[in-house]
Amino acid sequence: MKSPLVFVLMFQFAFLCSSSQVKADEGMYLFNDFPVQVLKERYGFEPTEAWANHLRLSSVRFNSGGSGSFISSNGLVLTNHHVASDTLHKLSSPERNLIDEGYLAKSWDQELKAPDLELNQLVSIENVSARVDAAVDDSASVEDAAKQRRAIIATIEKESLDATGLRSDVVTLFGGAKYHLYRYKKFTDVRLVWAPETKAAFFGGDADNFEYPRYNLDATIMRVYEDGKPAQLDNFLRWSDQPLTSGELVFVSGNPGRTQRIFTVAALEYLRDNRIPYLLDYLRRKEILMQQFSLEGKEASRRARDELFGIQNSRKAYTGMLAGLQNPLTFQSKQSREDALLAALATDGKNSKLAEAWPEIAAIQAEKKQMLGKSVSFRSSLFGYALQIVLLGAEDQKPNEERLRGYTDAARDSLLQSLLSTAPVYGDLEQVKLADELSRLIERRGADDPLVVKVLAGKGPRERAAELVNGTGMGDVEERKQLVDGGNKVIAASTDSMVELARAVEGDYRRLRSENERIAESERQAYARVSEAVTAIDGTGGYPDATFTLRLAFGEVKGYQEDGRNVAPTTDFAGAYQHALDHAGQQDFDLPESWLKAESNVDLKTQLNFVCTADIIGGNSGSPVVNRNGELVGLIFDGNIQSLTSDYLYSDEQGRAVSVAGVGIIEALRAIYNANELADQIGK
Amino acid sequence: MKSPLVFVLMFQFAFLCSSSQVKADEGMYLFNDFPVQVLKERYGFEPTEAWANHLRLSSVRFNSGGSGSFISSNGLVLTNHHVASDTLHKLSSPERNLIDEGYLAKSWDQELKAPDLELNQLVSIENVSARVDAAVDDSASVEDAAKQRRAIIATIEKESLDATGLRSDVVTLFGGAKYHLYRYKKFTDVRLVWAPETKAAFFGGDADNFEYPRYNLDATIMRVYEDGKPAQLDNFLRWSDQPLTSGELVFVSGNPGRTQRIFTVAALEYLRDNRIPYLLDYLRRKEILMQQFSLEGKEASRRARDELFGIQNSRKAYTGMLAGLQNPLTFQSKQSREDALLAALATDGKNSKLAEAWPEIAAIQAEKKQMLGKSVSFRSSLFGYALQIVLLGAEDQKPNEERLRGYTDAARDSLLQSLLSTAPVYGDLEQVKLADELSRLIERRGADDPLVVKVLAGKGPRERAAELVNGTGMGDVEERKQLVDGGNKVIAASTDSMVELARAVEGDYRRLRSENERIAESERQAYARVSEAVTAIDGTGGYPDATFTLRLAFGEVKGYQEDGRNVAPTTDFAGAYQHALDHAGQQDFDLPESWLKAESNVDLKTQLNFVCTADIIGGNSGSPVVNRNGELVGLIFDGNIQSLTSDYLYSDEQGRAVSVAGVGIIEALRAIYNANELADQIGK
Repeated sequence: MKSPLVFVLMFQFAFLCSSSQVKADEGMYLFNDFPVQVLKERYGFEPTEAWANHLRLSSVRFNSGGSGSFISSNGLVLTNHHVASDTLHKLSSPERNLIDEGYLAKSWDQELKAPDLELNQLVSIENVSARVDAAVDDSASVEDAAKQRRAIIATIEKESLDATGLRSDVVTLFGGAKYHLYRYKKFTDVRLVWAPETKAAFFGGDADNFEYPRYNLDATIMRVYEDGKPAQLDNFLRWSDQPLTSGELVFVSGNPGRTQRIFTVAALEYLRDNRIPYLLDYLRRKEILMQQFSLEGKEASRRARDELFGIQNSRKAYTGMLAGLQNPLTFQSKQSREDALLAALATDGKNSKLAEAWPEIAAIQAEKKQMLGKSVSFRSSLFGYALQIVLLGAEDQKPNEERLRGYTDAARDSLLQSLLSTAPVYGDLEQVKLADELSRLIERRGADDPLVVKVLAGKGPRERAAELVNGTGMGDVEERKQLVDGGNKVIAASTDSMVELARAVEGDYRRLRSENERIAESERQAYARVSEAVTAIDGTGGYPDATFTLRLAFGEVKGYQEDGRNVAPTTDFAGAYQHALDHAGQQDFDLPESWLKAESNVDLKTQLNFVCTADIIGGNSGSPVVNRNGELVGLIFDGNIQSLTSDYLYSDEQGRAVSVAGVGIIEALRAIYNANELADQIGK
Repeated sequence: MKSPLVFVLMFQFAFLCSSSQVKADEGMYLFNDFPVQVLKERYGFEPTEAWANHLRLSSVRFNSGGSGSFISSNGLVLTNHHVASDTLHKLSSPERNLIDEGYLAKSWDQELKAPDLELNQLVSIENVSARVDAAVDDSASVEDAAKQRRAIIATIEKESLDATGLRSDVVTLFGGAKYHLYRYKKFTDVRLVWAPETKAAFFGGDADNFEYPRYNLDATIMRVYEDGKPAQLDNFLRWSDQPLTSGELVFVSGNPGRTQRIFTVAALEYLRDNRIPYLLDYLRRKEILMQQFSLEGKEASRRARDELFGIQNSRKAYTGMLAGLQNPLTFQSKQSREDALLAALATDGKNSKLAEAWPEIAAIQAEKKQMLGKSVSFRSSLFGYALQIVLLGAEDQKPNEERLRGYTDAARDSLLQSLLSTAPVYGDLEQVKLADELSRLIERRGADDPLVVKVLAGKGPRERAAELVNGTGMGDVEERKQLVDGGNKVIAASTDSMVELARAVEGDYRRLRSENERIAESERQAYARVSEAVTAIDGTGGYPDATFTLRLAFGEVKGYQEDGRNVAPTTDFAGAYQHALDHAGQQDFDLPESWLKAESNVDLKTQLNFVCTADIIGGNSGSPVVNRNGELVGLIFDGNIQSLTSDYLYSDEQGRAVSVAGVGIIEALRAIYNANELADQIGK
């Protein structure tokens, strides 16, 4: 339902970013289309197929919205604390606050099972473009083309699932120029082994978020189990014990969520003038709401914190993105590229018709603007469960290939994994969140709108939210299971207040979803032609926009200049203690007790964080950083504020990916957390 | 520029609230139109003219947006800490943090002069309706009528100022059915005598704001000086030393800022669906901005806090107002009153034409909606100074009666008092605020808007804000004085960056202001007919909507029911200490050191806060509460959350005004603040 990552708020698309436009260390490359030539020319490095396969199989995707890696033969997984925090939050209670206090399992039986985590290991990639294209009638309308494409994708996914037992997702790349079938091994028994305190992981808090230099131990270690035992892994990352050096070549293997680098100027204007301001209003509203709820006391604060952090993170990221878009230089750069491309197209007889895609995309932006704020998916876990159950019941009545995405046979296990989560749902928080959503519904549609009248049922938002939350059993996994098992008839007859609400808005939800899909399909088709035009003019060899699937990025460890100062590429533990002193008395700048006690044990010169020029984005959180030998040297956890434009414009002038150093994690485990046994397993 | 009071964000109008609609203790009565009959019938109390005059002359208005009272013959003034906080903030520095630490002057020479405070004592009220009406041509267009009215008002004010030397304001009441000339004695040498710590004044912080029970010492004492000596006052309030009792009749004499109880259903819909959501988006944005700035450190936090508090206060107030408007019962109640009135009008041959005002008002709401967000007045002190100076230079070239309101001869002293304030302006804070305003300008108007292009000058918001703030001397009172003294030619030739910006937007500012004034005038004229209709159907004898001028409210000390619990009308010091214990570890719930140290000295049974049914609104903060004998028994500082609808709908079912008890203030001064000398002066 929520994640600290920027990624989850965004839709997904993959568009081509042409190689001739690719600058410096830009690029999020497909694992089946490695930038071999670039690496060889620029860095004199030639990755072997074995090198690439090992890295791919050592990488994992967290379906909650992040990345990670296998780091031992006995199933250990490394990710960020802020990727794990969703799980830490769900495993916490008033008596056991894992977010504040951290955790260390002293033995296997103390490892805590995550309520709803699914990890994916990318086992194979197969090009299914021809089969998808063949199934779509060239002369079909936008709606029919979308339907045909959805049907063939559902069929391919189901066949693959039936044949291999593997999670099978068809991924749309290059705006629909390519379709690849990704097969994943799934791990659903994932257990918490070690997490530091938030004070160490998120040291500097919201103030330091997206800033650099940093001193954060934003790391958590989990373990995947199979058949109740630690999974035995053939592929996992060994760790380098050497400090990072400036200029060193490094690689990032992770799942960037979404980029939009192919966007036309008109599309960027829509982001700048409509979508991002809209999202920021929304996020600020939710931020204040969660802050207000937190003021009610310590337990309220605990309940709200994970979501509040995610909102703050997104708000700061979008603020930075908007600042980049509001800088005229950004548009000048984009506009001149676009002008040059269109000028070249105009004289290219064979391809000149492709230029029609630009005005089409501009017209689509106006449609998207009309759709902003029309959603009927309230930000409430209870409502979310109810809506999913209602949709599941109805979709199950249809043939597999006609179902909504997310409700097909291939997607069923993952859907159930999320629906039958044992994570606690807090009624008081739900009530406050739902009241605000109802209030927002009135604001967006007006009090006399038929849907509003139906949803509010003659009451004010607060009264109605209380009634809905008090009248539902959706917080209870057993009640959800009964409905899911009962199927459509039982669901349709349920008098649960949230299920009734979900049924009441189902028609509107479906209409809006279908309308959004139609717009998305038009846009996809237009961008496919933009991709074609770019390829025609600039040649092939680039990388597609991000799709929350595994990609390789590369770059070098490198400092930068800021306000006339040199920012060094690495920080160390000594810097962390000094940073705390420099900000004494400020919120979120106190190190945890464990760090203060251990100061004399720690080798203060050990590297803690570093920056590199690799091209990352939200979703890459938790990605391993490896060296030429494929050894882990770091753990991505942030981008600096100058990198926030990389959603639409990569720059390595100041933009940097920020990582925890691998040597820093080992030092912390041994010298601060007395976790020698755990440290001994890592990389072995 | 800013104030903790809701009031400052709002425009001002006065409309009739008919007596037949007036319920229970509703009403904010004019001091020259006392509710004698109501008080006699309901409470058996007949105030004498002397009683009323004494209370009026003992009351003061804080031009920064609040109320207060004279409480000693030697010039002491009582108001809220949150009314004084603007001054406390301006008198503070990194070394002397009056907001955190409070203050007590041990002798007269330690009393600290406020940089720009103006206090007004209402000396007389004169009905000038006939003269205003005579000056306006019945057949004039809306624009001409407004011009004629503004001209006659400027003339009356100037004549009065010249004749009496008193501040002279013509106040528009009952939607223009009446015009009264208010003459004020001004006090501009106002000094700080005592303030408690914020921890005592704002105990419970944002969480407890607008809640009850409360335990707040939201009080500050200042002193007015004349000719460098404490002013000798004939009229001041004596203090009751008796505890308040349930059912006791009390009076509130203060300056409610704005109510809109006469608003039609269409106007309330505009508030609900457009204006308040718009304001809340704005406020939440500024709240996050100021929070983010505060994260930069202790000094940043100090600089931002007063404004942040004001924003939070407004945000919470508007949230409550919106909740009331989103409750269908509110509209049902308003709609049925309106239906009844219109039905009665329809059968009233003489007055039936007045019904045309309703559709006119509905049409005006659509115009107002169009104007939302069109402002070019950036929320920046530096820009504000520059714009005022540019306008002053230009307006001075015109005859007095043609000038903008606020720039006439009668208003000049108050304008200069504000322009030549010695309050510090913080460049870092200004830069952040201005960058956000520029960003917002792009969002609202689009990057290609001519005004945006002119204001941004080819740069991003942050770069442009830095350039503007670094290139201005508007933070220096001497530079402002030079421009003001130099007059229009000097101002027009200035190359100060902010003055240049103000000149660049002056045309747009004037166009928008004039457009807003035209809309306001149309609305005023329509509401004058609504008032006429109400009077025709329901009779006279009510009170006009609030106008930030002196009013009398009354009610009784009275508890209420909430969620099935009885809420007692009074709290005491014992409750304060208990409240701190109950919320140990929560932000803003720790009492200051002074209170903890003094606990054994304090008579814990002394009353600290109480609630009553008197009809108040933002601007009433700091109002004295007196008993039948005219003795001070309390100090208004808040309304509870249920009273937040009182902007448009008074209810005494749960809505209450919240006050500090007079006996509590005396107890705190003596037992906690060792301020016996000060306490000895009070009431004498």
